[in-house]
Amino acid sequence: MTETASRPTLEAVAARAGVSRATVSRVVNGGDGVREPLVERVRRAVEELGYVPNQAARSLVTKRHDAVAVVIAEPETRVFADPFFALQLRGISKELTAHDNQLVLLLTEGRDDHARVARYLAGGHVDGALVFSLHLDDPLPGLIQGAGVPTVFGGRPGWSDGTRDVVYVDSDNRGGAREAVRLLAGLGRTRIAHITGPLDQTSAADRLDGYREVMGENDPRLVVESDFTPGGAERAMRELLDRCPDLDAVFAANDLAASGALRVLRERGRRVPEDVAVVGFDDMLPVAEQSDPPLTTVRQDIEEMGRIMARLLLRRLDRRVADEAPGGVVLPTTLVRRASA
Amino acid sequence: MTETASRPTLEAVAARAGVSRATVSRVVNGGDGVREPLVERVRRAVEELGYVPNQAARSLVTKRHDAVAVVIAEPETRVFADPFFALQLRGISKELTAHDNQLVLLLTEGRDDHARVARYLAGGHVDGALVFSLHLDDPLPGLIQGAGVPTVFGGRPGWSDGTRDVVYVDSDNRGGAREAVRLLAGLGRTRIAHITGPLDQTSAADRLDGYREVMGENDPRLVVESDFTPGGAERAMRELLDRCPDLDAVFAANDLAASGALRVLRERGRRVPEDVAVVGFDDMLPVAEQSDPPLTTVRQDIEEMGRIMARLLLRRLDRRVADEAPGGVVLPTTLVRRASA
Repeated sequence: MTETASRPTLEAVAARAGVSRATVSRVVNGGDGVREPLVERVRRAVEELGYVPNQAARSLVTKRHDAVAVVIAEPETRVFADPFFALQLRGISKELTAHDNQLVLLLTEGRDDHARVARYLAGGHVDGALVFSLHLDDPLPGLIQGAGVPTVFGGRPGWSDGTRDVVYVDSDNRGGAREAVRLLAGLGRTRIAHITGPLDQTSAADRLDGYREVMGENDPRLVVESDFTPGGAERAMRELLDRCPDLDAVFAANDLAASGALRVLRERGRRVPEDVAVVGFDDMLPVAEQSDPPLTTVRQDIEEMGRIMARLLLRRLDRRVADEAPGGVVLPTTLVRRASA
Repeated sequence: MTETASRPTLEAVAARAGVSRATVSRVVNGGDGVREPLVERVRRAVEELGYVPNQAARSLVTKRHDAVAVVIAEPETRVFADPFFALQLRGISKELTAHDNQLVLLLTEGRDDHARVARYLAGGHVDGALVFSLHLDDPLPGLIQGAGVPTVFGGRPGWSDGTRDVVYVDSDNRGGAREAVRLLAGLGRTRIAHITGPLDQTSAADRLDGYREVMGENDPRLVVESDFTPGGAERAMRELLDRCPDLDAVFAANDLAASGALRVLRERGRRVPEDVAVVGFDDMLPVAEQSDPPLTTVRQDIEEMGRIMARLLLRRLDRRVADEAPGGVVLPTTLVRRASA
């Protein structure tokens, strides 16, 4: 293993290059005013010695770590199983990298680890945080508030007054759900079921609200709470078919859930869309295109959500303003028609 | 957004609980010698105020951040597309969490970002680093050496003398490959092709060496370099069939590559295993079990590799020894027989 003692110093670089410490410092920190041959000599010495500038010292001047934490309030197994997170991280990673900020993903085994995440955030290791997939009874938002790092949330926070104090980026979950259910109703379907996401998340709760706004007072047995996973949706679909064998449409709260529903419908001999029309949410590729039949779904631009979250946070950090108007950026959704409805 | 000014202090907690600062400090840092009713009062005050202990101050005493960086020397798109990384991270996450250490995953868009990763490592934000999927010409190992953080590598480092200076965890890639090729030869196959991984990684180079040890001097057209991805393996398989239409077996350097090879063999009308027997490497589930036909493969315990990497690093950090004998831990592989060979 490498030892701290072996770490080359600024002095060693200066000695090797035959220049002053100040010159090395100017070159390393990208400063101007150093003649090109000297710059070249310093660069060569830096390379030969494997010198890495002391970030801590640099931070004292810039007050920045050029690092942003990402916290996904789900166990790491879920983070790697659901392509939604990979897409959101892709947008975040591209945006942070374009501004030479390090993406620091803090992984956990579950909610018990959130206090440790908050300690890390409070420890002065990052300039800000992007937090998503919050659940309503999660202590994380309070802990983050305590940690005092500028934060942008992915998805509207669910706590009371949450939207007043924070900056967040969300999709129009309610509007998208309304459009999905209106499409099914427009096709003449009357027994439209809904497989929800976890209702302690605003994205799932808002989609259920959109469904109810169109359906009005309908049979409560047509709604089953689930968890955004294919396995959870399979159980929900079986329960729906047992309760209401005559259902003629399903609105699933995301595409992974729709794919689980399709499997159970096939297993029970229902034709899609002839017997039961199915609509998902996300337009998650390749799931939505390669399911059998391909999914009609509500498209949200997940990568763009990540990009906008990162952009809002970086803007806040760059300005070093004491405050920015809190509130939400809500992105529109679009209906994508394929064979399932 | 949350402001630093709003962060509750140790003093505020002490005032709310009606105890001294010292008492709060002892409770927060898990120290003994505080009576249970007082502990309870402090805990309640901590919770009510959303107090988060100041990690920086705590670090001054313990000299630890209780955080370990994980660096995967691949673009984040690859990290989320290859289940190998998710499995290795699962082992690491379980082990770090069991020791209340935060997993800090540093994601990048590619090699251009490695200098920034090294700056973060050098910045005093983590106690050590776990680094894997290194490529031979990657500047990262040198940069990490310069950053001076204790490091354990996943996979034998490829640079000269690399095995002398570092601690690493690896699988017996050469032995596993020998076993795979011996199985195929034992089945009477004589035109055994090999789709390699990227040969600037020791795992891929070692598997090729194992193949060559069994095959001796054979037709060089039977070996095609690829990149551990299904798409890359599809191209390699097409090239192999064009070059050597009479090949009767394929050893693919990992299961994802084997799945790509199976697709092309089916497309070209070859029956597996009757016309062409196929063996993979990893025993990656569900890929290996759900491929058509299911894959005979060389099993390596990827999650356990991650766990052992984390364990070696934590042991080093806990002992605070100046040095530990460098060297490698090499885990055995086992052949798993399924229908493809």
